[in-house]
Amino acid sequence: MTEQNIDQLSVNTIRTLSIDGVQAANSGHPGAPLGAAPMGYVVWQKFLRFNPQHPEWMGRDRFVLSAGHASMLIYSLLHLTGSPEMTLDELKNFRQWGSKTPGHPEFFHTKGLDATTGPLGQGAAMTVGMAMAEHHLAARYNREGFPIFDNYTYSILGDGDLQEGINHESAALAGHLKLGKLIWLHDDNSVQLDTATFKAESEDTAERFRSYGWEVLRVQDGNNLAEIENAIKQAQTNKDQPTLIQVKTVIGFGSPRAGTSKAHGEPLGAEGVAETKAALGWDYPPFTVPAEVKAHMDATERGAAYEAEWNKMMDGYRAAHPDLAGELDAVLARQLPANLSEVLPSYEVGGKPVATRNAGGEVINALAKVVPGLMGGSADLSGSTKTTIKDGGEFLPGSYEGRNVYFGVREFGMAAAGNGLSLYGGIRPLVGTFLVFADYLKPAFRLSAIQMQPVTYVLTHDSIGLGEDGPTHQPIDQLAMLRAVPGAHVIRPADANETAAAWAMALEYDKGPTALALSRQDLPILPRNHAGVKKGAYVLKDSENAQVILIASGSEVSLALDSAEALAKEGIAARVVSMPCMEVFRAQDQSYRDSVLTPNVKRVAIEAASKQPWYEWVGSGGAVIGMDTFGASAPAKILFEKFGFTVDNVVKVVKGVL
Amino acid sequence: MTEQNIDQLSVNTIRTLSIDGVQAANSGHPGAPLGAAPMGYVVWQKFLRFNPQHPEWMGRDRFVLSAGHASMLIYSLLHLTGSPEMTLDELKNFRQWGSKTPGHPEFFHTKGLDATTGPLGQGAAMTVGMAMAEHHLAARYNREGFPIFDNYTYSILGDGDLQEGINHESAALAGHLKLGKLIWLHDDNSVQLDTATFKAESEDTAERFRSYGWEVLRVQDGNNLAEIENAIKQAQTNKDQPTLIQVKTVIGFGSPRAGTSKAHGEPLGAEGVAETKAALGWDYPPFTVPAEVKAHMDATERGAAYEAEWNKMMDGYRAAHPDLAGELDAVLARQLPANLSEVLPSYEVGGKPVATRNAGGEVINALAKVVPGLMGGSADLSGSTKTTIKDGGEFLPGSYEGRNVYFGVREFGMAAAGNGLSLYGGIRPLVGTFLVFADYLKPAFRLSAIQMQPVTYVLTHDSIGLGEDGPTHQPIDQLAMLRAVPGAHVIRPADANETAAAWAMALEYDKGPTALALSRQDLPILPRNHAGVKKGAYVLKDSENAQVILIASGSEVSLALDSAEALAKEGIAARVVSMPCMEVFRAQDQSYRDSVLTPNVKRVAIEAASKQPWYEWVGSGGAVIGMDTFGASAPAKILFEKFGFTVDNVVKVVKGVL
Repeated sequence: MTEQNIDQLSVNTIRTLSIDGVQAANSGHPGAPLGAAPMGYVVWQKFLRFNPQHPEWMGRDRFVLSAGHASMLIYSLLHLTGSPEMTLDELKNFRQWGSKTPGHPEFFHTKGLDATTGPLGQGAAMTVGMAMAEHHLAARYNREGFPIFDNYTYSILGDGDLQEGINHESAALAGHLKLGKLIWLHDDNSVQLDTATFKAESEDTAERFRSYGWEVLRVQDGNNLAEIENAIKQAQTNKDQPTLIQVKTVIGFGSPRAGTSKAHGEPLGAEGVAETKAALGWDYPPFTVPAEVKAHMDATERGAAYEAEWNKMMDGYRAAHPDLAGELDAVLARQLPANLSEVLPSYEVGGKPVATRNAGGEVINALAKVVPGLMGGSADLSGSTKTTIKDGGEFLPGSYEGRNVYFGVREFGMAAAGNGLSLYGGIRPLVGTFLVFADYLKPAFRLSAIQMQPVTYVLTHDSIGLGEDGPTHQPIDQLAMLRAVPGAHVIRPADANETAAAWAMALEYDKGPTALALSRQDLPILPRNHAGVKKGAYVLKDSENAQVILIASGSEVSLALDSAEALAKEGIAARVVSMPCMEVFRAQDQSYRDSVLTPNVKRVAIEAASKQPWYEWVGSGGAVIGMDTFGASAPAKILFEKFGFTVDNVVKVVKGVL
Repeated sequence: MTEQNIDQLSVNTIRTLSIDGVQAANSGHPGAPLGAAPMGYVVWQKFLRFNPQHPEWMGRDRFVLSAGHASMLIYSLLHLTGSPEMTLDELKNFRQWGSKTPGHPEFFHTKGLDATTGPLGQGAAMTVGMAMAEHHLAARYNREGFPIFDNYTYSILGDGDLQEGINHESAALAGHLKLGKLIWLHDDNSVQLDTATFKAESEDTAERFRSYGWEVLRVQDGNNLAEIENAIKQAQTNKDQPTLIQVKTVIGFGSPRAGTSKAHGEPLGAEGVAETKAALGWDYPPFTVPAEVKAHMDATERGAAYEAEWNKMMDGYRAAHPDLAGELDAVLARQLPANLSEVLPSYEVGGKPVATRNAGGEVINALAKVVPGLMGGSADLSGSTKTTIKDGGEFLPGSYEGRNVYFGVREFGMAAAGNGLSLYGGIRPLVGTFLVFADYLKPAFRLSAIQMQPVTYVLTHDSIGLGEDGPTHQPIDQLAMLRAVPGAHVIRPADANETAAAWAMALEYDKGPTALALSRQDLPILPRNHAGVKKGAYVLKDSENAQVILIASGSEVSLALDSAEALAKEGIAARVVSMPCMEVFRAQDQSYRDSVLTPNVKRVAIEAASKQPWYEWVGSGGAVIGMDTFGASAPAKILFEKFGFTVDNVVKVVKGVL
């Protein structure tokens, strides 16, 4: 069989496996795999360095199918290249309960994927973070003769990916940062779900990407494998610019619906599948992999060789640079120092009040000394979020060893890059903005959670306590929004000491993201009780035979303490519970929870935000003091008074409850 | 005084009022007003058609300060041009409780503003909607000799606005749609909060905008009023392209911090103010408006003349086109037909089950016949969200009379455009996507609420019931997220009849946005009870001496009914409450609420989503059946079983509670 023939047969195997999978599920997207199979094949067969037997191998190239709805494309590639897990049966069970082939690629669920994709724009955006991680770790750890970090990062994007706003943020960031080893292939089929793209779009994408500093190449015929291969080769030679390769394709190639929206998101039907196979000259039964294709595409051997070569280099590196290798091992293992809590700053009770954002800045700087993988930045608010690692250097175009990234006013792109930094491995990314602008990055926060990535979100200016900037900048609904995300931890520390504990919790939690909600305003220092914070909630101040439990978080904890004192003067015994993290408290055993929130004792919760999350803890007969409206523009002190966050009001509410 | 002198004096009046305001508040952003005062002056003095005595005048030009932190610029302009409300005292009370001068411009709060701004990128994005509204209403209602809708829409944007992802979505949309009367001025000062922009950005913004089809002009000297004026004139002549004018400015012009990040967001200090005034050659006391500037800039007279001229044209129009004028009046008044509920489709109990998204599509089409202002579209999901107005025509570049917009895969830009469409007046916009992708548009949903704009969000595929697309597409946290936004209504109807009522509620609610959460899957038809739905929750099926109340929304209501039947067989009397809208139910009087949720009767809530919002209704001793994790990829029926949305599980939970 000639090389051309085996190539073509391989491409058609990918295509037919994909449409067979969609047809078996009677659900899914046949159009993109049919059109993009050639570029998928070329990337995986001719370029991608990976090891099917050990898909987590650190030295591998990264590949993210940003157009996640084309998932059968990557499942077919995984099967054909020899993923032990991705059997033919899995392809047959596309989109079924428990299969390794869910509707969209799920990173944590299926081996061989580098990211979860489906929410458009984010796959490609995460590759920017992956390329940043590669450049950063290379700058810090590569030494002459030891290119430990030296991989390409590929992504296939659809028209929808390019229309999303995040594409602007991430492409601008990648171009600015001159991420030369990042290569995006645009599946340029001119068709989207509703319509041919011309009804929704007229941009000159090549010109746009050039405006960001990208190299842009064009493949005129998306079925011409040599043309695709040459373009990728050319992209690889450009080390100073990321490259966009626009590959002109036909959606649903070979099918009766080729070139139309109808090919996008519905199974072709038995007849359509038959017609497509006929057009492709394919006369095998469903789910057939011709033996010569299996032999040709199986990457087991070459993958093992890639890794062996890399491992050999690592051995040499360990010998030549033992200290550096030791640090690198700790980074890659995301190892935390045993004495973490000793490293954290401590604040004396009754000392000068400190804004938790400022405490957070001090904690970050203390942690940065002992957690070398900690790096990140903010969306142009570092001066406000206090996220700068002071002696960490700047991460700049062409100079990647710095640990402080200027993400620009690009919250969503930043958070997606944070996911990419984390997915790459080793890095413990932190990303920062105002809590209210968590809105802008919410889709990436969700993907942090779905992918179980330990990204730390530093979200400051966490209530009306930010004062004069007014309602557009005062979070009300954001804490509820973040707490509703499964697997995420949201921690709102009450003071500087709780902030230190919160950061430790964030680093110790490796099953998802942590959002730290920090105050702009100074808060009194409370007794240090890391053990209590780490249980999510604890009794901060008890009172014998408490008639009421005041539960609060963040800046409202001090108000609860003052209110308890005032209540005591009126003969009402109140316990004060600080509840910095509901998710963690919920996970404690019943007896601990009951010891903090004693059953049948009335409860009043206080948080200057949406009341929604608090009813779970208050129960019947209690009350929540929160925000029912947006805030207002005025000095913080006045706002707290006007919106009822005063001792007088808490006392009044408690009396009402009792 | 020469013309040049009075111009310069006026510009410096704007500048000094602005820094005096910031200084008095000891809070705010002096840099942008100092740099952008010349362009603000030119737009307002030489071009903007508005009437200070009647700022809501429909025929006015629109102006949106997208860089909302420069709010003192627009407050100064409002004062100088004669806003009756914007007194000098208000300027002195910048950022104080109850003032008309909040930290960022608040549309509903201060007269003369066309939008609330501050969250970057969104101001400009809303102007795209405003320009769309103008083009649309012009296409439908203008007649020869009667250019009722014929205004320009201006916006001033900062570098941060341009970095935000939404800028890509909205600029691409505006360029695609050839919105020729949209003019953006870029306050191009090369400085952002953290840094000079060069550390965060290297894009060629002009090239990017040309890639979208915009005309791009450049003003080399942002202090040169003639150059700015000429550029705007040139922009106005181009009717087929929106125009970006890049105006090179110096942030903090005249101040000791000019040209640096330090000038961005902190008061200059008394000394800095003094030095700035010296540099500007200004030797008046604080908050001085020279009499000649007041006389020169006051727009009361010319504003009244503009409106009088327009009103005269309207009189002629009414005479010449009485029917059209009548329809237009109804549109502008957002008038609803008296027989709204008769117009709505009705579905027979026990009839063929209907997905609420499909019912929604039928309702939209019924409403479109009687609500001519209803228009909108989806983010490339119209086939799935069923948001197409079937005989409404397409809104396309150069052809704006159609009511169906192809927003592209631009959720956030779409929602911001929805806000702009609504703010313009008359239009009742609807925007659609999958519920899970409400994440992408959350910041605009919040601005719908802050601005109290009646935008209807059609959010389909509202639970794991969407099935095979899997966790990235299955909303869990989104209902909690939306319900936490003050002033927004979130309605999740249980069937086709509730969907009709929900749409009526959405149109009748004019104080904020409504999100409709609609199912992908078919749902059984329940008895039509619009009155009940409109109270937010109602007893759908009662049971004498009910021992337990099952509360549910959407697709889980039928499950609650089936469970009540099963419980009855076991001798447990259960009431079923359908709760499509918590916000509306919360606003009912206590006696109604108690009649639905009888105190001291145990409650179990069921919703296939985050449990967070339900604890408010369940109270102590009850239970919530919801989702604690993300979903999975499988057919819907299997997912509901696996995640516990079965009669068996509900019965089990109820028994546990009792």
